[in-house]
This record gives sequence, C-alpha cells and structure tokens, in this order.
Amino acid sequence: MYRSHTCGELRISHAGQQVTLAGWIQSIRKFGSITFTDLRDRYGITQLVFGEELNEQLSQASLGREFVIQAKGLVRERSNKNNNIPTGAVEIAVSSFSVLNKAATPPFTIQDDTDGGDDLRMKFRYLDLRRNELKRNLELRYAVNRSARNYLHEKGFMDIETPFLIKSTPEGARDFVVPSRMNSGQFYALPQSPQTFKQLLMVSGYDRYYQVVKCFRDEDLRADRQPEFTQIDCEMAFVEQEDILDMFEGMIRAIFKDVKNIDIPGKVERMTWEDAMWNYGNDKPDLRFGMKLLNIKSAFQKNGKLEANGELIAGTNFGVFNDAETVVAIAVPGTAEYTRKQTDELTEWVKRPQIGMKGLAFIKANSDGTYKSSFDKFFNEQQLKTVADAAGAKPGDLVLILAGTEERTRKAMSELRLEMAERLGLRKKDEFKLLWVLDFPLFEYAEEENRWVARHHPFTSPKPDQIRTMIGNSPVIENAAEYLKHPYANIKANAYDMVLNGNEIGGGSIRIFQRDLQEKMFDALGMSREEANHKFGFLLGAFEYGAPPHGGIAFGFDRLCAVLGGSESIRDFIAFPKNNSGRDTMLDAPSAIDNQQLTELGITIKTPSA
Amino acid sequence: MYRSHTCGELRISHAGQQVTLAGWIQSIRKFGSITFTDLRDRYGITQLVFGEELNEQLSQASLGREFVIQAKGLVRERSNKNNNIPTGAVEIAVSSFSVLNKAATPPFTIQDDTDGGDDLRMKFRYLDLRRNELKRNLELRYAVNRSARNYLHEKGFMDIETPFLIKSTPEGARDFVVPSRMNSGQFYALPQSPQTFKQLLMVSGYDRYYQVVKCFRDEDLRADRQPEFTQIDCEMAFVEQEDILDMFEGMIRAIFKDVKNIDIPGKVERMTWEDAMWNYGNDKPDLRFGMKLLNIKSAFQKNGKLEANGELIAGTNFGVFNDAETVVAIAVPGTAEYTRKQTDELTEWVKRPQIGMKGLAFIKANSDGTYKSSFDKFFNEQQLKTVADAAGAKPGDLVLILAGTEERTRKAMSELRLEMAERLGLRKKDEFKLLWVLDFPLFEYAEEENRWVARHHPFTSPKPDQIRTMIGNSPVIENAAEYLKHPYANIKANAYDMVLNGNEIGGGSIRIFQRDLQEKMFDALGMSREEANHKFGFLLGAFEYGAPPHGGIAFGFDRLCAVLGGSESIRDFIAFPKNNSGRDTMLDAPSAIDNQQLTELGITIKTPSA
Repeated sequence: MYRSHTCGELRISHAGQQVTLAGWIQSIRKFGSITFTDLRDRYGITQLVFGEELNEQLSQASLGREFVIQAKGLVRERSNKNNNIPTGAVEIAVSSFSVLNKAATPPFTIQDDTDGGDDLRMKFRYLDLRRNELKRNLELRYAVNRSARNYLHEKGFMDIETPFLIKSTPEGARDFVVPSRMNSGQFYALPQSPQTFKQLLMVSGYDRYYQVVKCFRDEDLRADRQPEFTQIDCEMAFVEQEDILDMFEGMIRAIFKDVKNIDIPGKVERMTWEDAMWNYGNDKPDLRFGMKLLNIKSAFQKNGKLEANGELIAGTNFGVFNDAETVVAIAVPGTAEYTRKQTDELTEWVKRPQIGMKGLAFIKANSDGTYKSSFDKFFNEQQLKTVADAAGAKPGDLVLILAGTEERTRKAMSELRLEMAERLGLRKKDEFKLLWVLDFPLFEYAEEENRWVARHHPFTSPKPDQIRTMIGNSPVIENAAEYLKHPYANIKANAYDMVLNGNEIGGGSIRIFQRDLQEKMFDALGMSREEANHKFGFLLGAFEYGAPPHGGIAFGFDRLCAVLGGSESIRDFIAFPKNNSGRDTMLDAPSAIDNQQLTELGITIKTPSA
Repeated sequence: MYRSHTCGELRISHAGQQVTLAGWIQSIRKFGSITFTDLRDRYGITQLVFGEELNEQLSQASLGREFVIQAKGLVRERSNKNNNIPTGAVEIAVSSFSVLNKAATPPFTIQDDTDGGDDLRMKFRYLDLRRNELKRNLELRYAVNRSARNYLHEKGFMDIETPFLIKSTPEGARDFVVPSRMNSGQFYALPQSPQTFKQLLMVSGYDRYYQVVKCFRDEDLRADRQPEFTQIDCEMAFVEQEDILDMFEGMIRAIFKDVKNIDIPGKVERMTWEDAMWNYGNDKPDLRFGMKLLNIKSAFQKNGKLEANGELIAGTNFGVFNDAETVVAIAVPGTAEYTRKQTDELTEWVKRPQIGMKGLAFIKANSDGTYKSSFDKFFNEQQLKTVADAAGAKPGDLVLILAGTEERTRKAMSELRLEMAERLGLRKKDEFKLLWVLDFPLFEYAEEENRWVARHHPFTSPKPDQIRTMIGNSPVIENAAEYLKHPYANIKANAYDMVLNGNEIGGGSIRIFQRDLQEKMFDALGMSREEANHKFGFLLGAFEYGAPPHGGIAFGFDRLCAVLGGSESIRDFIAFPKNNSGRDTMLDAPSAIDNQQLTELGITIKTPSA
C-alpha cells in the first residue's frame, strides 16, 4: 500500500501520528520558504506543508498540478483551520516525499467550474472524471444501483444474466448487429432489452428476476439518448398489475431513502393515460407545479367520447378558434404584467419549428380585475373572464391559448407549460414528484404503413375485459382517415409508467402468456405467421408448456440517476458516454477495421455508388 | 397476487388455514376417487388433494404435467408424511381450482435425471431451466454474485459501468465487431474485457473499482468456452501486489463462507509459476492430491538455470531416456498391481493425439519391496529403486515415466497426473484447494512470427527490478532457435493467478502506469508507434496526466461458479448458453438479417468465391 491513510480521513484526533498519504496535487502555494500543497484523492483533500529543508528536492521535482506524489509526515493541528472540508483542522508536516508520476498541464482545469468545453471534456474524459461534479454523479449512480439491488434481493428477486449475442428481431427501433465469423453470412443482434428472456425465465419458474443490464438501440441520437444504456430490468410471475405497482413503489421509496434520505409519504399518485393527456398534454406530466390544461375545444376522446366542444367560447367569433380542431389554454401565475416584447417573444417561441404553432393568443387577468387579450376585437371582457376563470386564472395571471390540430396543439401546449414553469423557477431540482401513469393504449396508429404498432411492445397484454374486443375484430383499417373509430384504437393495456418530475423513469406491463393471444397480437401488428414464428417461435413455443401469468417493469437507470441528481442530462451520469453522433471521441470509436477482420467475417464495405 | 403462499412455505403450523397456491403440476396420482398432485414452484413442492366432488372439473380440465394451476383449500396434516421435503408434513385439501395455462407434453421429463439429450435440452432451455439441478446452479451463481458485491462494497469498491461499444484493438483473441450505421464503413468492437477502462478509472482517481460484466471473444470454441462470458472485474490504485492478493483472498474467503459455509483456514498457499511448472507441469496445479513430478532430466530453466541433468539415471543405458530432452515421472499411489492390460491401456492413453507421446515407461514398486519395470533390460533393481524413491513411491505404488521434448512431455505428464487422480477418485467435488500462482513470465515467444507476445496482456508491469532488463535490451530475436537465451525470456511479471482445484478462476497483474514503459512494452510486442497510438493513444495520453500506480484482477465468474458447484462445465451455470458452434439453438441465432438492414449498415455479404 502506498498510503497509511486516505486524503479524506485525518482529523484532529490523528494529531501526532506519522502517516503516509498518496494522491494528486490539487494546488501549490509558496509562502516564503514554506510550500503548501493540497493533496487530493477519491476521499478528500489534505493540506501538506513542505519546510525549507525540502526546497531543493521540491525544486528538482518541479511539482505541478495533477502530479501524483507520496508524502510521509506528521499530522498536526492547523493554526488556520478550514471549516469547509472535513480534514480542515489538520495538516501534514512533510518529512519526505516522492513523485510517483509526473503530469503535463491538463487541457482544462480540474475544478468544479471547469474551463473545458464539451468536446475537450469528452476527449479527455479521464480528466473530466476527476472533477467533483462527475465524481458525485457516479457515486450517486452506484448508490442507486446498490439500493435497488438490496431492495430486490430482500424481496426474493434473483439477478440472472441474459445473453448479449441474440437474434435480430427489429420491431420499432433498429438493432445493432454483430457479424458471426463461425456462421458466415449470419448475424447476432445486441438486445434492445432482455424482454423475451425475462419472460422465458418466468416460464422456467424463476418467479422474481432482476438485472441491471446494458441495452442497445441503433437510433438517430437526440441530444439526450445514448446507443447503449442501462436498465434495471425486473419481472414477476403470478402477479397482477397492482402487485407490480406496489413492489416497485417500494423500490423507488427505498432508493429515495437510501440515496437522498427523502421519505416518500403515502401512496404514489396515479393517473390514467387519458387524464394525463387531457390535463397536461403529455403522458409524463411534471406535477411539481399546476397549470393544468383547459380544454376549450378538442378532438381528444376520453372513454371513447369527445369531452370539449367549445361551449366555453360559444357566441364568440374569432376565426382562429372557430376554425381550429383544438383550442387549449393554461393560466400562468403572476405573469399578467408581461410586456408586449415578452408576449411577442413567447409567440416566436411557439412558432419555432420544434413547436410548430402558427401563433399564440393570450388573456391578461389583470390585478385590478380587468381583462385584456390579444383578440379583444372578438371577445368582450365577460367572455375573456369566462375563459380565464375556467383556466383557473387568478388576478395577475396570464392565460396562454393555442389553437390548431389536435395532436400538435396538445403537444405544443405541454411544451409551453414546461417552458413557462422553467422560466418561473417552478421546476425545482430538489423537489420530487412521483406519479404512476396507467391504462396506456395497447396500440398506436402508424400512418405511413396504415397499420397498428404496439405502443409499449408486442408482449403487453390488453386489459382482460378488452381481450374479446381484440380477438373479435380484424386489425385491418379500412378507412385510414377514420382509424380512431376502429375498435383497436380504444383498447387499453395493462401497462404503466413511473414518472418522476416529468421524466419517464420506468415502464412495464402485464404480459400476454397465452400462445393464441400472442399470435393474435402478432396478427394485429401485421406480422405474418411465418415471420412471427421466425422471430419469436421460441416464445410461442414456451407458451405451450405451462406459462404462468407474469408482468414486469424496466427502469431507465441513466435517466433515473440524472433526475435524482437534479440534472436533465444523462451523459454526466455515465462514466464513458458517446457523443450525439454515437462516437466515443476519447477512443476514437467506431473506427475502420483491417481487411483481414472483414475477410474473416465474410463481409465487405459497400462503396457508395457514384 | 395469484397466491397467498408459495409451494415451499407451508408447515404443520399452518394447518387449519385457508390458502391459495399457484404453480406447476409436477405429478398426478389417482387413488380411487381421490386425486393427489404435487404442485411445484421456485420455492418447493406441496401436495394437493382433490376430493371426489372435483372429479368432474378435473376430468374436464384434463390436467397434465406442467399445467399451471391455482388452487384454494385448507392446509391439513398429512397422515403419510414425506420427510424428504420441508412441506412434507402437510397437504392442501383443495376446495376449488382453476387452470391458468395448459401444457403440452414436454419433449423430455422435467426431473433430476432427465431423459433429454444435450441438443434437445438446449433447444428447450426454458424447460431445462425448470430442473432442480439448473435451478440450484443459477441460485449458486446469484449467491456468488451477491457475496462478491457485498464484500467489495464493504471494502470501498464502486461498481462503475464501462462501455460495450468500444474500439477494435485485437491483440491475442479476435474481437466481435459491430458495424456503425451512423459512421458508415466503421465498426465498434465488443470488449474482450474492460481492461483499459478500469485503468482509466484509476487515472481518474476512482481508486477501487469493480464490475460484474459481460466480455466477448470471437474464438473458435472449445468444449467449455463461450463467446460471451462474465468477469468479476476489479482494479485498485496505490497498491502493490501484496495488497491485491490480500484483498482478493478475502473475497474468495467471503464467497466460500456465504455460499458454501466453508471456512478457509489460514493464508492461501502461494507458488511461483516456475515451481508450478516444475512440480506439476502446469500453471494451475490441482493440489487436492500429490503426485508431484520427479524431474529426471529437463530443459526447463528455474531461475535461469537447468536443474535436472539426469544424474538420477547416470550409469544406465536406456536409449529412450538417454536421447530425450526431458524425462519426468510421477508415483501413482496403490496401483503397482495394475495388470499388463491396464498399463497397455495407459500407454494407449498417452499416445492419443491430444497427448501425443510415443510411449509410457513404468516402474512397479511392489508391496513386497521388489521393483519391476517396463525397461528391466536397461535398469537393475537398485537403479529402479533410486528413481522410484526419488519420485516418492511407496511400496504398492506405480511410477509412470514419460520422455520426450520438454514442452510436450511436461504437458503430457500434467495431463496424465490429472487423469490418474480422476481414476483414483482423488479429485473430490466437495474438497477445495486454493492457490496463488505468482511470478509469471512477462512474455511468451510466438514461434510463427518470431516475436514476443504478452503472456497476460500488454498492460502488465515487469517486476520492478527487471524493468531495466526490458528497457536496456532490444526485443529483436536474432536467433529463433535460441529465443530462450534472449534477456526477455526470463523477465517475470507482477502477475498472479488464483487457482481453485486446478482451474484458473482469476488472474491479474500490477499495471504499467508510465507512458515511456508502456511504449517500450508496445515496442517489445512489435507494435509500431503509429499502431500503438492508433489503438491505445487514449491510454498513453492518460498516463501523461498523473497516473497512479495500480493493479487489479478479474475472476472468471462462470468458471468460479462451476467449480464451486462441483462441475467441470460452465454451460450448466449460464442461463442461456451457446453451443460449441456459438449458436443459440433456442433462438436460432445467429441468423440472416434482411437486406434493408445490410443496406443501412453499408455492408454486403461476400459470396464465397468459386
């Protein structure tokens, strides 16, 4: 061992002891003939004092930041204590030291506020990882990992490893594939999730399974996606939805307690998917603040019925509202005083291509009880008040209104709601609001192909009372324009998401466990029997030999850690992430491989055709 | 929940309670109008009794083996208790039941002694996994996983995930590669181990790292290799070899205690690589039994010197011994009575191509104190006694002698030693002998390329006092025939293996942490500076910014579990293994992928040229 103690360990009670420390030089300060350095390791920082007698050796060593040294000396009380660090009461009077390794000047400063840009920090990730912020993030990640494992272990779950070299069965996202040398012309795929394996384990009788496991998706990366990501993946047999919700509320509760020392009181709030969409425009609403949507007009169906037909604005004559499929509003607290410049800027914000609205209407519920709007020509003050009241506006609030086609308008309003909350500081990093969203639709309509796709995945079970609807109707959509009237459009699934502060941190479902229903599901997704057997024959086969009822959930581990850490970015919670082009700039990967490798694999690289 | 209790839970104290169980039907027996079934789940087996009143429902359900049912009823004391199972004192008087899922007749019986062959069991792995043996194996695997994690956690190690999509840097085994769609013509590689990443984490200051992690090697598979395998991967900074041996002895000790309830007394035995090769012909000797090698003549150098020159057989004139480079012997206890047929069979055994010897000589140390040999023409009885005594033979033992070229003969004798132990029942499954093998050679000679390769990997440090030998000499081998005289041949590494019952269960080393020494190592392996920078520039770079001394170890998790479970086969300790062709016959993977996938990836499959 190169040390007797760590740099975070020494206290006033150690005074008088001879110790040996090893670590990195965080800083060097000279006062006259005396040299002070802060020595850093994973555990903390300890001040070293080099007396005059070491000056010659010091000058030969030409110590600098990030040098790795070993120092021996006496622990003594500091005259000038530093109360900001746990070791601040002591220092080491160095009697001897040696340089274990030199360090070139780092390309950016290794401090809380670094001067390194993103690209530089990614390329020198091993240096960025020395910074406190990233260290805290990885420590939090490990604490979450440990807490989840402990909880699941206590509940009788078993960690069972599933394979990484599996079969390509793309349905939704693209698979990463791996050419097989021993089986020329054939490929393995990397798993998008261990879904079918954990179901097989239930068929095998393992009952309660978990894994903290890497998964892979070859998607075009958005800012906060990674081609490889980690799931806390779980499955249980002989359970119903309620059992799973209970079990995993418990897990999140344990994680909050262990990692953040936060008690989550009572049961986690629950909301149907329809209510979430209706009230927040979003299937993962952030409940740290209000601003529920007022649905003035909408094509959205709740329980198969239209619920907002424009009654609130009956008798008015504003073409933008009258002609729109959907008109929705939110009341933004305390912003009635916004200037013209500010409302113009908000209008520009909703007109950006990412949001895609044509404009923004607003009503100011002034503090003096009067109402002004951006469409005063068409609404009298009473009509404005009616809408503002319905949106829940209090004096001093600003009601923002969007109008347009259903889907885009609802989504835009959801974005606007989050943006306003952000601007008003309502998305607090240290406040946590958990939510179960339940009763997701089983299917989604895929316009390009005019067919149904699984909203969750093809193994999710419909609600028991809707199995008949599914079995009794053809999946064929005769009239694309009226797909919403197809019986499949309203089939709900035993599927659930856990939402934390507006982020989906976990999702799962009760699974199909009967061969005939699973085949019907593949039919519904437009998969031929031949294709279904080719891709999932093993699972259909397994269902013939006594498959128990089962269900499960998977948590997005990277996202969960980021949200717990109060960050929007998962990248800072992954030791070695990839950039938005899927590259590891530190390794310079992916990269070309040599021709011998290609030859052995029996593949060639296609030169782009002229 | 489909059950109030598991099938392993009920005891006599539950008698009188109404319970609900769910599980698989293990067996059905009819006695008159009463039907008995054993219901099985992960936790055990409970006997259900169906009275006459359920006969109609039973006959409609046509229950069979492996059906999944739910049964409600009263717990009552059995008149005819089964003391072999924990639930054997009670049975359930079933009041109602329902079939949760039917089961076709399984292709093999789901019992301890199954009638299924290997291929069938692999194809229907989800059924094979129901068998007790495999369940016990996976439970043991989880217990080892949990124990290792708990130990490492307590010692301050952090689980930090390293990436799976990395850069291809084959050195030794082949990489599996993953074509990148977003970076056309480029490939990721799957890691053969997280080696460089864990070293970077040490450079980053994380100090104590671990991971239970999948690794990948595209090798031609031998009977007991898998293309994907799991390592318990660990690294520590500011340590010397002794610290690592201590730490991981502790881990193995904890695993034995937690998993097998075995206390490992005292320190784990240590042996140099040279001693292991000299005394056992093998770098992973099985110490459950003796039969040390007697080196009569040998070209093997210990401490750079020849140590056996044939003195023992001076004055004899047996050409087979005289002309051989190497003559080695073992004394096999209690087999002097072997018949001619038995010694002939052993001779055939060593002549098989896998062993490759030309013959086998033997001396019988008879119980009556006389000596007989297969080469009596050339040795008198005193000369036979001299050799037999030196081999440690007691009256009644058989001395087996092999002669030939050094490497082959030593290896053959190692195999013969294991074979004889196997035949004599000396390799007991429930006896465990741990051993550290130390001081491995740093380099191995690669004959085809006439160059040095790293025996462990290119990041292993030479012994500190041999760094000068490495830096001060050119790696070039002028005379291939005399490579053993090159100064590099005798450089030893700070590398160590942990051996359990003749299996290498873990191995590691103290690493190079200086850029110049690492570059010298790449030179020594015949890697150009350009290639070294292309492949490992990130690591060389990292070593410039303050890399601490560090070292680590990786345990072969699959093998460790198999040895602990008393098995030679890792496959039975992996939930979903691949066969010897690297195929998953259950999934039918690898498989062809469609042309669209190939096009997106920018690759084509090479049709074999005519």
